[in-house]
Amino acid sequence: MAQTFAVIGLGRFGSSLLESLINDGQEVLAIDNNQETIQEYMDIATHAVIADAQDEDSLKELDLPSLEHVIVAIGHNQQASILATILLKDLGCKHVIAKAENNLHARVLSKIGADEVVRPEHEMAQQVANRLVSPNLLNYITLSDEYSIGEIKISNFEFVNKTIADLDIRSEYGLNVIAIKAHESFIVAPEASYEIHIGDVLTVIGTCDNVQKFDRLVTGN
Amino acid sequence: MAQTFAVIGLGRFGSSLLESLINDGQEVLAIDNNQETIQEYMDIATHAVIADAQDEDSLKELDLPSLEHVIVAIGHNQQASILATILLKDLGCKHVIAKAENNLHARVLSKIGADEVVRPEHEMAQQVANRLVSPNLLNYITLSDEYSIGEIKISNFEFVNKTIADLDIRSEYGLNVIAIKAHESFIVAPEASYEIHIGDVLTVIGTCDNVQKFDRLVTGN
Amino acid sequence: MAQTFAVIGLGRFGSSLLESLINDGQEVLAIDNNQETIQEYMDIATHAVIADAQDEDSLKELDLPSLEHVIVAIGHNQQASILATILLKDLGCKHVIAKAENNLHARVLSKIGADEVVRPEHEMAQQVANRLVSPNLLNYITLSDEYSIGEIKISNFEFVNKTIADLDIRSEYGLNVIAIKAHESFIVAPEASYEIHIGDVLTVIGTCDNVQKFDRLVTGN
Amino acid sequence: MAQTFAVIGLGRFGSSLLESLINDGQEVLAIDNNQETIQEYMDIATHAVIADAQDEDSLKELDLPSLEHVIVAIGHNQQASILATILLKDLGCKHVIAKAENNLHARVLSKIGADEVVRPEHEMAQQVANRLVSPNLLNYITLSDEYSIGEIKISNFEFVNKTIADLDIRSEYGLNVIAIKAHESFIVAPEASYEIHIGDVLTVIGTCDNVQKFDRLVTGN
Amino acid sequence: MAQTFAVIGLGRFGSSLLESLINDGQEVLAIDNNQETIQEYMDIATHAVIADAQDEDSLKELDLPSLEHVIVAIGHNQQASILATILLKDLGCKHVIAKAENNLHARVLSKIGADEVVRPEHEMAQQVANRLVSPNLLNYITLSDEYSIGEIKISNFEFVNKTIADLDIRSEYGLNVIAIKAHESFIVAPEASYEIHIGDVLTVIGTCDNVQKFDRLVTGN
Amino acid sequence: MAQTFAVIGLGRFGSSLLESLINDGQEVLAIDNNQETIQEYMDIATHAVIADAQDEDSLKELDLPSLEHVIVAIGHNQQASILATILLKDLGCKHVIAKAENNLHARVLSKIGADEVVRPEHEMAQQVANRLVSPNLLNYITLSDEYSIGEIKISNFEFVNKTIADLDIRSEYGLNVIAIKAHESFIVAPEASYEIHIGDVLTVIGTCDNVQKFDRLVTGN
Amino acid sequence: MAQTFAVIGLGRFGSSLLESLINDGQEVLAIDNNQETIQEYMDIATHAVIADAQDEDSLKELDLPSLEHVIVAIGHNQQASILATILLKDLGCKHVIAKAENNLHARVLSKIGADEVVRPEHEMAQQVANRLVSPNLLNYITLSDEYSIGEIKISNFEFVNKTIADLDIRSEYGLNVIAIKAHESFIVAPEASYEIHIGDVLTVIGTCDNVQKFDRLVTGN
Amino acid sequence: MAQTFAVIGLGRFGSSLLESLINDGQEVLAIDNNQETIQEYMDIATHAVIADAQDEDSLKELDLPSLEHVIVAIGHNQQASILATILLKDLGCKHVIAKAENNLHARVLSKIGADEVVRPEHEMAQQVANRLVSPNLLNYITLSDEYSIGEIKISNFEFVNKTIADLDIRSEYGLNVIAIKAHESFIVAPEASYEIHIGDVLTVIGTCDNVQKFDRLVTGN
Repeated sequence: MAQTFAVIGLGRFGSSLLESLINDGQEVLAIDNNQETIQEYMDIATHAVIADAQDEDSLKELDLPSLEHVIVAIGHNQQASILATILLKDLGCKHVIAKAENNLHARVLSKIGADEVVRPEHEMAQQVANRLVSPNLLNYITLSDEYSIGEIKISNFEFVNKTIADLDIRSEYGLNVIAIKAHESFIVAPEASYEIHIGDVLTVIGTCDNVQKFDRLVTGN
Repeated sequence: MAQTFAVIGLGRFGSSLLESLINDGQEVLAIDNNQETIQEYMDIATHAVIADAQDEDSLKELDLPSLEHVIVAIGHNQQASILATILLKDLGCKHVIAKAENNLHARVLSKIGADEVVRPEHEMAQQVANRLVSPNLLNYITLSDEYSIGEIKISNFEFVNKTIADLDIRSEYGLNVIAIKAHESFIVAPEASYEIHIGDVLTVIGTCDNVQKFDRLVTGN
Repeated sequence: MAQTFAVIGLGRFGSSLLESLINDGQEVLAIDNNQETIQEYMDIATHAVIADAQDEDSLKELDLPSLEHVIVAIGHNQQASILATILLKDLGCKHVIAKAENNLHARVLSKIGADEVVRPEHEMAQQVANRLVSPNLLNYITLSDEYSIGEIKISNFEFVNKTIADLDIRSEYGLNVIAIKAHESFIVAPEASYEIHIGDVLTVIGTCDNVQKFDRLVTGN
Repeated sequence: MAQTFAVIGLGRFGSSLLESLINDGQEVLAIDNNQETIQEYMDIATHAVIADAQDEDSLKELDLPSLEHVIVAIGHNQQASILATILLKDLGCKHVIAKAENNLHARVLSKIGADEVVRPEHEMAQQVANRLVSPNLLNYITLSDEYSIGEIKISNFEFVNKTIADLDIRSEYGLNVIAIKAHESFIVAPEASYEIHIGDVLTVIGTCDNVQKFDRLVTGN
Repeated sequence: MAQTFAVIGLGRFGSSLLESLINDGQEVLAIDNNQETIQEYMDIATHAVIADAQDEDSLKELDLPSLEHVIVAIGHNQQASILATILLKDLGCKHVIAKAENNLHARVLSKIGADEVVRPEHEMAQQVANRLVSPNLLNYITLSDEYSIGEIKISNFEFVNKTIADLDIRSEYGLNVIAIKAHESFIVAPEASYEIHIGDVLTVIGTCDNVQKFDRLVTGN
Repeated sequence: MAQTFAVIGLGRFGSSLLESLINDGQEVLAIDNNQETIQEYMDIATHAVIADAQDEDSLKELDLPSLEHVIVAIGHNQQASILATILLKDLGCKHVIAKAENNLHARVLSKIGADEVVRPEHEMAQQVANRLVSPNLLNYITLSDEYSIGEIKISNFEFVNKTIADLDIRSEYGLNVIAIKAHESFIVAPEASYEIHIGDVLTVIGTCDNVQKFDRLVTGN
Repeated sequence: MAQTFAVIGLGRFGSSLLESLINDGQEVLAIDNNQETIQEYMDIATHAVIADAQDEDSLKELDLPSLEHVIVAIGHNQQASILATILLKDLGCKHVIAKAENNLHARVLSKIGADEVVRPEHEMAQQVANRLVSPNLLNYITLSDEYSIGEIKISNFEFVNKTIADLDIRSEYGLNVIAIKAHESFIVAPEASYEIHIGDVLTVIGTCDNVQKFDRLVTGN
Repeated sequence: MAQTFAVIGLGRFGSSLLESLINDGQEVLAIDNNQETIQEYMDIATHAVIADAQDEDSLKELDLPSLEHVIVAIGHNQQASILATILLKDLGCKHVIAKAENNLHARVLSKIGADEVVRPEHEMAQQVANRLVSPNLLNYITLSDEYSIGEIKISNFEFVNKTIADLDIRSEYGLNVIAIKAHESFIVAPEASYEIHIGDVLTVIGTCDNVQKFDRLVTGN
């Protein structure tokens, strides 16, 4: 069943979000103060209205508290983003997600009641940095304070032509091998006798430290 | 061992990237055409220089081809981003990553030789959309065309007070439960006799379809 | 003994405030991001420094929490006023007074922790409106929810050439006459036999309703 | 009976003034050269018209001399404020109140005939300064060159648990205690036997010097 | 003996005035708020200083009241022109001449005390209009309410080859012929027997009406 | 009989010229590229049209060569003034008068064919300078290279109470006294026995040198 | 038979190109994003439409791939020129000619697929430079890597009054004289007995070196 | 021997011209009012100076009349281009070449004395148009009113495998074949027996009409 959303501000972030949600079959109300922008999203969004998110009366007319999520995706104008957020919470919106330009902006948004604050450029920068630094660590999820899953590509010849048993991954590195993506196949819960090849991608689970140590070992750093 | 990077353009994306890399112990040359910005990053980056990335002579003096990665993080000025990218590839930079404002910009950057193109606002918007649509799917990794791992929170009472064996997750849903985060503990490779509670987070592996079906079941959609 | 103040933003309000405080013998640190403005207040303020109030590091260096009062008198830039206020409270300033442009701005300032919010144009407009509407009510103080003092000019000939006793002000209007300013003298606690003249100004105490009724009577509205 | 006003310029001061007057039941003509602003005040003001206050013909059509008060609340544009004021006086307006940006502007407005000049930011700054400097002096009215009334909060333990008679306020400080606001009651013309508590607010009348001396004593400066 | 002048504002009018006065051997202090402009007039004016004429302190330092004439030649900025004028009169300048942009500006300048107000574009437009309308009236001076001198070119063949006596200019037109400029000579107080030629220029004195009637006759209108 | 004019550009000079000509009963076509300006002159000028004077086609439609005088009164935009002037002469306008901003602009206008060039601010500045330098020389006309008329006020006591004969003005100063304006009368061709008083205004004719020498004598310089 | 063209951007280059093509009888579609510009070319171009060349949908509607040539004549906006060019090639336009602002811009245009790149200011500058440097070389065509034709004016008296045979141009200078333009005649394939005069223009063919040597000889450099 | 030039205005045209001249060994003085631009050309031009070409004094100091050619390459500012040109001719420069923006600008430049006027965008547009319309006419020179040389590519199979004699080019088309560029050779004054191939380029001389007719024949239009 579709959820209901409002996206305020159709800049790069807001418009991308709108399109992702619409493609996913959700109901989305698009709001922007620019007539041309709204014209363009008329046929894409479920509804599209011109409104000034800094103006209490305009927001009241839209009955936003009846929606499940409201995203304040206003671009560079921090004042507009702050005023819209405080108005939305005052009106009684349940779940307000606000986009922040920087750390200080994020702190103000939290203080005035935003339920969630996102910083797209900052968070994507961290993901890109991680990927560049650990090119063999294709994916990494933190499961708890202690445990994580890592998807690690074998590019180091020391590991090649040895079985999982040979390497004794569990006792030597404290990791479980959950799955292996080989050249033309994908094996869930591989046998200990599986022989590793260059380019194989191992999905392992273990403590964060162990996953990272193993990655560095494999990368040769 | 540290890798070597240059980050051109210290806007929100570039500066966040720079800080992530520096925190990770990498060597980063910061480049911007604004004196004040460079002043600010003098003590943060490994080196920081004022240069106009649209000017061939300025770029030549920086000996950028000797670095492993060059990131063109120039903000709204698409022309500057395009001209800098073509100059960097002409100079012989091995790995040029360019930030694009939109789809068309991204196509130009690829055509003129960027090795990688990122669109932070767009990509983060997709991640946020996914998270909002599947609030119980805390993390999700695509391992291959067919297989994925999902980290799913149990918020549906139908599943509660049943063991993994009761639910018969492997045969009923085609999924392996790799780990469970319970209220106060974390269990890797749980026993079939484990009894599920509300709020438990199950990490499962299986085909993409099965992981998503299970998520929707758990969410109650 | 002098108190210690910082005034941030030397526009019309900030500079007037600074001058009033200095004339009163207080110690005032003047802060503005404009060099020329600071130059001008160098010899007027106790200290005067150029600083950007939106920049955490700049504010830290000024050791503002050691001062008794910090006034954020930043003009039209609501964003700057909001960010400065949140930074000052985070730094631990005891008493932060912030100037607001309008009602919504005032609400944000309160939410993020301003100890006091003033709206000069709005408050002065109310005072001017009151004065225009009640031209004979020269001054008016609300003492409690119920009681007030009014300073009322007699411009109505019905009251003239009668004594306070004749008019029976206390029982007829429920007011005590505390003082009378006559043409050339000022009488505290006047006798009941005092004969009122056109232009006399009576200071009366009583319930708010009674003071206002008496004013309207005197004005002839 | 309602008086008649025109407010020219609906910035922060003008709009606040308009609203105060309308709330008070007065008849107010709103004038601004901005169509959107006038649209907004259409339903608030008695009448609202778009007009350029620097244009003699526009002003003539409005028949402003028939109104009792005209307030020139034009914002930052000193030239417009000056030209409007001279035109209004030339047209024969009886009572023109003009808002000034600063001291020099105020002098010009007086010279060209403004009946009254107000400087909201300046005057409010003085009031705020006084309040900060004398936190116990809740209200203060100058009744004549010599006499004033002060409303003073007792925050000093020396005065506590003494009666008015003990303190001998009249002979010691030259002041009459007109009223006392205690924790839960309000007493007009208190007895000499009244015993003062911390937090009591005394309303006193006397010479300006005496009121201020008493305030400083109570404040402990 | 040279007189002393200050010219404030070196736009087209101010700079032309300055140059005329300097060429005439007068002592002129040039004042402008633009450094480049002052640089340029350094060697032309007797003295040249950078100063803001809206700033009382700057004007005070220049000791302008000791000069015989101060000309406020400030260009389009009416506010600056008004504020400078009021400051100069307050400082005690004897003779302040101010340039006005239009009629309303001129009225303000007079009201605030300018001793003389000039409107160059307006006055020159009137002179050009007069010259175009009466192309034969080369010069015209009003001597009193009633009398004037006109310098009229003969372009009408009716008058040609007649003597002053023939035309009986004095009794017929009520004019005295003071001088005649002929092709190659200039005759003061010409004889009645002088025979007029096409192109001769007669200087006549008489009542304003008579001079204008004679001009129209000669022009053939 | 009325002449026909076009005035292009209704700034301060153009509008003043237009009004002078219309007041004089002439037929004037007003041309400006600003719609509002034309609206305003609709009822004042004989005709008023919106046109871009830099556009050949627009000018052609107006049939300007049929008019007797075309005045290019375009303000600060020298390029527009130059292009309009060359187009008007190319179209065959008989008499084009162009307003110049400065000397260089004037030279260009002459070179490209303007029949007459005026510089209002410059010419009026010269007139004002002359008047200030010679305050007693109320009017002055140059009749030829050699001769002039001057209207000189007697403010010097040396000349007072002497007759024209006593002073021997004709032989001593080489001047003829044409007229005298006394306190309450005006005398054309005064007798030699006329006795001069302080404040009398003498109209004299003579060589330029003599008129100026006499003026300086009278002024006391 | 007419060819079909589209010209995008009607600045100086685009509009001149459009007019040349139309005068030559070609069919030209004019495209610009400015309404006024399109209005002006409505009657000149075969068709004229308002469209944003950076917008894929707008370009698609125009069916540009059906035309033989598309010229991107967009002025100073390099980004618009780049994005339009990539869109046109993606849409399948056969022959796209793009105007470049400078060398770097030209390289980007080539990389993204422009079939031809022109730099009008640069190429015309080279032609002017050549003409100034070799004033006697009226025309010059490079026929191959080695051969060229030059049209050279004889301004050097050494060559005068000698026949082609005397000068022995073919063996001495390695050149064939194809034609001679004399004072009043034009001779194709002149006889060897032709006697050269000052001002004659010789069209010669030969190697590039020889043509240039001969030119320098004739010029006297 | 090098000639001497000044190039005023180093925009795209001016800078390209400067570089062409310098590469050719000429002496060039570079003049621009922008300090950065001059900095950049310091090492390229013979001399480079910052000067305002609208300022007579600045130009005088440069002794420009001593140079053989002065090029006014000022960009979009028509006023600056006009004023610089008139000043240069007034100063006595022998040969002033001015760049015009459009036809009207070109007329003004000629009227005020420019010796030569160029319009790069316009002239290059005509060359491009000609090339597009006649793609086989690789080069074309007008030798006189009547005669021209054309360089024509054979792309039409009708002409192929025939000798020059077969085609009877001289009598049939009235043209002389001067040279032929074949696939791998270049033949000056080819024999009549030469057999033409597809892709051959014939250089022909003849009347303009004949050259163009032959081109159209070959092109198949």
